Amino acid sequence: MLLKQEIAQQPDVIRRLLDEGAAATGAVASAIREFDPVFACIAARGTSDHAAIYAQYLFGAALQMPVMLATPSLHTVYDRSANLSKALVIGISQSGKAEDVRAVLNDARSQGALTLAITNYQDSPLAATGAYHLPLRADEEFSVAATKTYTAQLTAIAMLATALADDEEMRSGLKKLPGLATESLALTEGIADWAQRYRYMDRLTVLGRGFNYATACEISLKVKELTYIASEGYSEADFRHGPIAVVQEGYPVILVAPQGKTFSAMRDIFDAVEEKGAETLVISNDDDLLRAATKAMPIPAAPEWLSPVVGVIPGQVFAMCQALTRGYEVDKPRGLSKVTITE
Amino acid sequence: MLLKQEIAQQPDVIRRLLDEGAAATGAVASAIREFDPVFACIAARGTSDHAAIYAQYLFGAALQMPVMLATPSLHTVYDRSANLSKALVIGISQSGKAEDVRAVLNDARSQGALTLAITNYQDSPLAATGAYHLPLRADEEFSVAATKTYTAQLTAIAMLATALADDEEMRSGLKKLPGLATESLALTEGIADWAQRYRYMDRLTVLGRGFNYATACEISLKVKELTYIASEGYSEADFRHGPIAVVQEGYPVILVAPQGKTFSAMRDIFDAVEEKGAETLVISNDDDLLRAATKAMPIPAAPEWLSPVVGVIPGQVFAMCQALTRGYEVDKPRGLSKVTITE
Repeated sequence: MLLKQEIAQQPDVIRRLLDEGAAATGAVASAIREFDPVFACIAARGTSDHAAIYAQYLFGAALQMPVMLATPSLHTVYDRSANLSKALVIGISQSGKAEDVRAVLNDARSQGALTLAITNYQDSPLAATGAYHLPLRADEEFSVAATKTYTAQLTAIAMLATALADDEEMRSGLKKLPGLATESLALTEGIADWAQRYRYMDRLTVLGRGFNYATACEISLKVKELTYIASEGYSEADFRHGPIAVVQEGYPVILVAPQGKTFSAMRDIFDAVEEKGAETLVISNDDDLLRAATKAMPIPAAPEWLSPVVGVIPGQVFAMCQALTRGYEVDKPRGLSKVTITE
Repeated sequence: MLLKQEIAQQPDVIRRLLDEGAAATGAVASAIREFDPVFACIAARGTSDHAAIYAQYLFGAALQMPVMLATPSLHTVYDRSANLSKALVIGISQSGKAEDVRAVLNDARSQGALTLAITNYQDSPLAATGAYHLPLRADEEFSVAATKTYTAQLTAIAMLATALADDEEMRSGLKKLPGLATESLALTEGIADWAQRYRYMDRLTVLGRGFNYATACEISLKVKELTYIASEGYSEADFRHGPIAVVQEGYPVILVAPQGKTFSAMRDIFDAVEEKGAETLVISNDDDLLRAATKAMPIPAAPEWLSPVVGVIPGQVFAMCQALTRGYEVDKPRGLSKVTITE
């Protein structure tokens, strides 16, 4: 099973990227400092778009840099790019073949923006389009559901934020990341034992907040890609504005709730859905919340800004176990290709 | 039934806003021109967030103004606002009571940003926080599911973009909007006859692209709020990157596909889901596509940038009919309040 192998490779991929990618990241950070962007704009699709969401929160919190997520159709359908001349424009794509992401970078570069591609392939069209390129160094990812390239994207973004912030605490946090990923992986052992409980689940909500809004979106997409069920990721705040109406007795909710600044909001939404009788599947390092959950997915304690790397791993394993318990094709879900090109 | 009345009030609400709101909009446009923002940032939740998505596309296409959607938790949870000093910062909230939206406006104002509130209440906290306020003049909305305040928000945004673009063609398009909304409403007559076909539908995907990505998100939310089913809105491009795996025989998909620049992409995704055996519910003014659909929801021809106002109306009616055919409470869905305050 390729997916299982690729999930297991994540600590090594992260370690290699931290080692081998440091110099390139430093050079990009210097160029960004010199350019002094007023804001950043990130173009991405699917899983890569969840890495973009992570960057939106991290660049905001660590660098006070406003980040917009691009609207590629303005570039490819309406042919009316917004004015990105004062922006750092980043395109993220595992394959580097996303045509619409490339179109955003291309327009931005011709407007005078500082452009950066983050891909797993040095020789991809996207890598050639950006003025700068940060390769993920994750080796080939064979499984259609992206896992190691997602955590590598998060790591690349965390490295860039650290270089720009020039912050010692962030630097030392980053060094711990491969070890934290290893711990998180080890803690997923138990999931296979109880995953069958959700064999007939046909819908699922995944909730996070702040940095882990990205994690909620990504876990939701993994489950959907691998099991075809109706799975949705939400910020717990957005969830309260309408979607919470769906929760009733037995409704499954995954809560990404590591300790930190978003914990009390996640604890509140845990109480709210539990009161409605929801099944609560909790990804956390808070023992009380794990004990209160229907099913616990423990993760190691990590600096909050790095918790999305640690927190997505049990979600990936849960999604894989769901496909397995249903007898579905794990490495090549029906109707999907590894590279999706949209314009 | 209040919801039905409020849906029917939309043409009048739009007409009144166009008449009575013109002077205030002109004053805000002058202030924006003078401030000369590098980008815009919009804070909103739920339905209002879909109006923000519309603004993201419209301001980009008509004004080349880059628009980011705010990340309120940076302001309320992490206490680390991004630097919005060169931005036009807009808060959108029906009630004007959204605390997190107000926090974004408040931080932005203290940073020196130009701030604007768009609400239905002159005396709301959000209206008092913005340097400028554009009231929706929609009278009180009693139904929990927002309808007339949503199309009023779209109209306010369209008016502001028109004033900023100072474009005669846009101005004349805008004048037609109340009439177009009336036509769209008249064309929804048939929906009640066939809505029962979807009485046992338990999930739904709504697809749009460009301007009508907002429409897809909003129709999806209306169906979810009123029927509690698993309903999701997607850009057709994002849908291809994974979520399309869910489509199989009989799977219902609403496609918002008015003629215009996004039509060929929507026609392609129509073919793709039809080939998988999907039930296709098409909102369009293209006769061929309407004929090819399982169920047709015709709309009048409108300038593409105004099609989200026209296109959401059959979706609102479809959502209401689903609640009715299921015997659900229409005006007050279970577990929801009219005003949701998140921090």
